[in-house]
Amino acid sequence: MEKPLQRFRELVRKIRAFADAEAVLYWDLRTGAPRKGAEARAETIGFLSSERFKLIASAEMGTLLAELEEPSVWEKLGELDRRQVKEARREHDRSVRIPPEKHREFVTLTSKAETVWEEAKRKADFGLLAPYLERIVAMTREFIGLWGHEGHPYNTLLDQYEPGMTVDVLDRVFGELKAETVPLVQRAAERSRQVRADFLELEYPADKQREFSLFMLREMGYDFEAGRLDETEHPFMITLGPGDARVTTRYKENDVWFALSSTIHEGGHALYEQNLAPELAGTLLYDGASMGMHESQSRFWEIFVGSSLPFWRRYFPELARLFPRQLAGVDAEGFYRAINRSRPSLIRIEADELTYNLHIIIRYELEKALVAGEIGVGELPALWNAKYGAYLGVVPAHDGEGVLQDVHWAGGSFGYFPTYTLGNMYAAQLMHALRRDMPDVDGRIERGELAPIRRWLTDRIHRYGKSRTPDELIREATGEPLNPRHLIEHLKAKFG
Amino acid sequence: MEKPLQRFRELVRKIRAFADAEAVLYWDLRTGAPRKGAEARAETIGFLSSERFKLIASAEMGTLLAELEEPSVWEKLGELDRRQVKEARREHDRSVRIPPEKHREFVTLTSKAETVWEEAKRKADFGLLAPYLERIVAMTREFIGLWGHEGHPYNTLLDQYEPGMTVDVLDRVFGELKAETVPLVQRAAERSRQVRADFLELEYPADKQREFSLFMLREMGYDFEAGRLDETEHPFMITLGPGDARVTTRYKENDVWFALSSTIHEGGHALYEQNLAPELAGTLLYDGASMGMHESQSRFWEIFVGSSLPFWRRYFPELARLFPRQLAGVDAEGFYRAINRSRPSLIRIEADELTYNLHIIIRYELEKALVAGEIGVGELPALWNAKYGAYLGVVPAHDGEGVLQDVHWAGGSFGYFPTYTLGNMYAAQLMHALRRDMPDVDGRIERGELAPIRRWLTDRIHRYGKSRTPDELIREATGEPLNPRHLIEHLKAKFG
Repeated sequence: MEKPLQRFRELVRKIRAFADAEAVLYWDLRTGAPRKGAEARAETIGFLSSERFKLIASAEMGTLLAELEEPSVWEKLGELDRRQVKEARREHDRSVRIPPEKHREFVTLTSKAETVWEEAKRKADFGLLAPYLERIVAMTREFIGLWGHEGHPYNTLLDQYEPGMTVDVLDRVFGELKAETVPLVQRAAERSRQVRADFLELEYPADKQREFSLFMLREMGYDFEAGRLDETEHPFMITLGPGDARVTTRYKENDVWFALSSTIHEGGHALYEQNLAPELAGTLLYDGASMGMHESQSRFWEIFVGSSLPFWRRYFPELARLFPRQLAGVDAEGFYRAINRSRPSLIRIEADELTYNLHIIIRYELEKALVAGEIGVGELPALWNAKYGAYLGVVPAHDGEGVLQDVHWAGGSFGYFPTYTLGNMYAAQLMHALRRDMPDVDGRIERGELAPIRRWLTDRIHRYGKSRTPDELIREATGEPLNPRHLIEHLKAKFG
Repeated sequence: MEKPLQRFRELVRKIRAFADAEAVLYWDLRTGAPRKGAEARAETIGFLSSERFKLIASAEMGTLLAELEEPSVWEKLGELDRRQVKEARREHDRSVRIPPEKHREFVTLTSKAETVWEEAKRKADFGLLAPYLERIVAMTREFIGLWGHEGHPYNTLLDQYEPGMTVDVLDRVFGELKAETVPLVQRAAERSRQVRADFLELEYPADKQREFSLFMLREMGYDFEAGRLDETEHPFMITLGPGDARVTTRYKENDVWFALSSTIHEGGHALYEQNLAPELAGTLLYDGASMGMHESQSRFWEIFVGSSLPFWRRYFPELARLFPRQLAGVDAEGFYRAINRSRPSLIRIEADELTYNLHIIIRYELEKALVAGEIGVGELPALWNAKYGAYLGVVPAHDGEGVLQDVHWAGGSFGYFPTYTLGNMYAAQLMHALRRDMPDVDGRIERGELAPIRRWLTDRIHRYGKSRTPDELIREATGEPLNPRHLIEHLKAKFG
């Protein structure tokens, strides 16, 4: 047994080394690489990524997996190795079942489609993108055939981002969430219109914003010896290897909440990565359990901590000390109300906490139907607009602010959107469980005692990495499977 | 022919992609990567580097080279491809002639020796390092046997860093340089003692130094869209791929000349890389012609431009504007004299322009004798001290400031030191040729017209990359082969 296990672990370490190198090159490209090097850099990233995929799909990996899955070998494997072998099997099968020339065709197609999408969005001309989308959907359906699927064909797409998640579950939890939140939207918007928020858009110098972002990350327990904070266009968190989980943010000088919420959000992702159990380093389990579970950690901090009243009771005075002129006459409660306004809008990435999930549900419903062949690409604009009208009460004036707003479909990423709302649901459910385990959680937040909260999350989520499924984690942490009621109750209490 | 040439080019592009990725990971590690990620990062760099070497040494590379070297194929190759094939042959042979287990042994040995060296230097205890050095010298001699050599065995070490350079040439040019400069040392020191320089060591805030470094690079014609300036411990220049040549520097708050000279020096290296002909990108020729030729570009700017009186006539007022208090009562000439003081010293990296070459010549003489088996490792400390006494008139009080000061030998880098002085010689020779082609060069420098100088260097050196040998380049640019007289005359005029 030792021999194949050892060789498997070595192969995995190589795969991880490629992934880490790609992460460094990507981070640098997005935080300050010079313009003229960008094209060659993108090629180098593509090269590393294709070398990594070759290892995952390699005959050597296939042989090793088969050897390790032999019952006589399998029964001697430890739990972590078993999980790792399962994960490798999942990725290996996914890779080898698509013929290389099909894979190349898809990469070329989506890369062209992303370029066309930019123009289509700018010109608000869905017709430009449609033929590409037709082809992308057709190929995606072809891939599903090759990968195989249990139940709904969309399940196999979901499984890439949220292992174990199915259409049956999503239909139920998204259906419930939709039914309960659509009625809240207009009333919440009505009330929000009374809230004063002009002060959020005064001039906030970037250097002071940076100071506050750094302070905030330290307060959350972010370890600056295992990461750093930089600026970028679209904020993200990225792990460049064990001991190196970096946060990026963006300081908009006329929107103080943008960087603040981004930093806290990405900081939440980073706390997950910084607190993975060290023994997972170099394995396929050194990662979040799923995209949804990762998002739960960012949203937990952004929404359930960083957008709460106790939080701003503690931190508003610190913010006001940095921006005394801009925040003159504002208090913690006024700031809290301003950052929590709700308003149905057309653009997902600008949506508030209440309406955001409806943007996601619209996309979920449409891509599920596309993949099942129930609707065609040509029907997307009309269906999109109808759903926005029905759920949010707003209708795009043109497709540029409608069906063309996101790059995901042009990039071939079907099945990704639902993880955003799953993240919100997990986060709400975790907060509910935390309140049970730590009844004084609001008091602690109000006193800036965030460390015990971080530790609670590490004990229940972070440290396990990908060695447990999202379903196992949420059951273990909260005592029940995914339950949309916690998010619904939270939204009703806050916006109802 | 097309088929092997195409496959060869593809293989080379992969090799370059690995090298570029390594450069990004290294740059990041040295400019701001968090402490806790350093160990894993070093492993990832090691992994990429070993993958790269595997490709260079691969059987596929061997087969392709043999196919391309077939006379019927060779005669149809263009000049650039021929040069590239020659370069690949050089690197391939060098790699395959060392058995992999020997190579691993050497890597492990030198990596341990570097750690031991740190302790040995700290404790000034040569005995700690000696057994490692014995083994490193023995293995180096064994490798020379495997690589083969023409003439002196040291030639094959030189050839790694300075293709075509030989002991015969070095003995002659270094001998002449030594004979002419040793007599200058004491007199120059005498005169330098009269020069006021205390103002160089006042407090110079880092942010103002940064401002001047950025200004200086722009003046030199450094393209900030194809590079950037960052801070590090030991300044270096590194190319992360086509269109991305980065400079690093270090702001010492009590030593204004340190960052300034470092920035100009590394900027000179960067101008070389930024002005390589674009068609060389992705080939093995996208690089400097040799270590010595690269050093000539950094020293040209640092010494022959940036340490000249016309330069400071132009730029001293700019510096004084940033540091009016620190430079009160100083003028361009006073500043020029202060930065050009000479004094025989024990430490190479702190040496001035005149004495620096003698530090190098001492190392050259010793490592050449070691490699030839004429002296043993045990004799190094005494020989070192004797040579310092004879050439520089100073004797180390202990080995920590003597034979143990540099890491190079512990790292197994024999043959590298001479390229520093070769760089100075090429630079002096280029300056002499530039004066012939552009008689008003001092006037131009004094007017800050540096662009024509940069263009002159690009036309003659930069653009060719590694497609010409150092010997071809220097002959073509100056009309004669390497000639030590130009450096000697320069030093005599400046320090005699």
